[in-house]
Amino acid sequence: MNQELLLQAPFSMLSERMQHQIRFILELDKLKHIMRRSILLSESRTENDAEHSWHLCMLATIFAEYAEPDVNINRVIRMLLIHDIVEIDAGDTFIYEESTHAESQHSREQAAAERIFGLLPDDMRYEFSALWREFENKQTPDAKFAASLDRIQPLFLNYFNHGGTWARYGVTSDKVRDKQHFISEASSPLWKMVETLIDDAVKRGMMQK
Amino acid sequence: MNQELLLQAPFSMLSERMQHQIRFILELDKLKHIMRRSILLSESRTENDAEHSWHLCMLATIFAEYAEPDVNINRVIRMLLIHDIVEIDAGDTFIYEESTHAESQHSREQAAAERIFGLLPDDMRYEFSALWREFENKQTPDAKFAASLDRIQPLFLNYFNHGGTWARYGVTSDKVRDKQHFISEASSPLWKMVETLIDDAVKRGMMQK
Repeated sequence: MNQELLLQAPFSMLSERMQHQIRFILELDKLKHIMRRSILLSESRTENDAEHSWHLCMLATIFAEYAEPDVNINRVIRMLLIHDIVEIDAGDTFIYEESTHAESQHSREQAAAERIFGLLPDDMRYEFSALWREFENKQTPDAKFAASLDRIQPLFLNYFNHGGTWARYGVTSDKVRDKQHFISEASSPLWKMVETLIDDAVKRGMMQK
Repeated sequence: MNQELLLQAPFSMLSERMQHQIRFILELDKLKHIMRRSILLSESRTENDAEHSWHLCMLATIFAEYAEPDVNINRVIRMLLIHDIVEIDAGDTFIYEESTHAESQHSREQAAAERIFGLLPDDMRYEFSALWREFENKQTPDAKFAASLDRIQPLFLNYFNHGGTWARYGVTSDKVRDKQHFISEASSPLWKMVETLIDDAVKRGMMQK
């Protein structure tokens, strides 16, 4: 990328607001290089955060009918669009990882949110930071539903991909159930489906009990 | 991917509706392998359709304020989420391509829409097909704005990336202006920005006049 252009006319002659917006849009391109552990169904490579975020938004669109009535699915989609942006700086943290990387996750992501959302005009910076924080805290109905989809998508990739990361990293069903149990608060039909697939994954030997 | 699991219990015991929804969600994973011509800002590889779709949704969120007042940005985001799904079967067609591939684009995409959206329960199939058709026709305010973003994102990638596909494929500014002129109907501030960057790209030799 030619960074010089950001400092020169005509870019520097656009409104200051639009310059901030475009800088943020360009920064987002980096999310396409942040790799997750999840293996794609083709089994040819792992998934990146940008395509993962798109897939989650599609799950939101398709599974909207299983959300509690107080869930605003458009807000859920906006949360999912931005939920991983902090990983541009902080990197992906594997959910079953126990390491110093996992321990420092919170502070790394907080610093990342400040830098990256800080590229935006102030009003948007506040809006995006608040939405990301809401997602992270999983307390509101919208955030619980969004976070549920963020668990269900890799569950599909693992279940239909011979165990995927469960098999590769020896993840046990107790751990999976523990990390996913909050889905029961967000959607009973989806939680029932998740339990069904976890039980079957153990039976089929994709996952340790 | 283990396709067998789709035919066996417990998957085959889920509601028929949910089975259809999950089959569609799994099919979507293929969009992560459909490559576009656009080169990422890192210059390390080209972009795929799934991450492109995510990036467009982010543009919609950030540039919403430049849309005409009758645009429903949540519908725009839904259009952008699904606008390239047909390329799973039909492949990406480079906008400046003149070939039999480009000529057959319409019929290939129509067949793809029938097969892929046909995986969904009927109500969703109708909804997704109609939304995709609306995007393709670029007649409604929502579709015009969505399609504008689909032009502006690669323009950013090209402009900030030493001309990108303009330089690589010898695209002229007349052609770019011709393909992008409808943006003027969707948003005057964005069209003004686009014209500014196209003029400058010619001046800097990234694009032929």
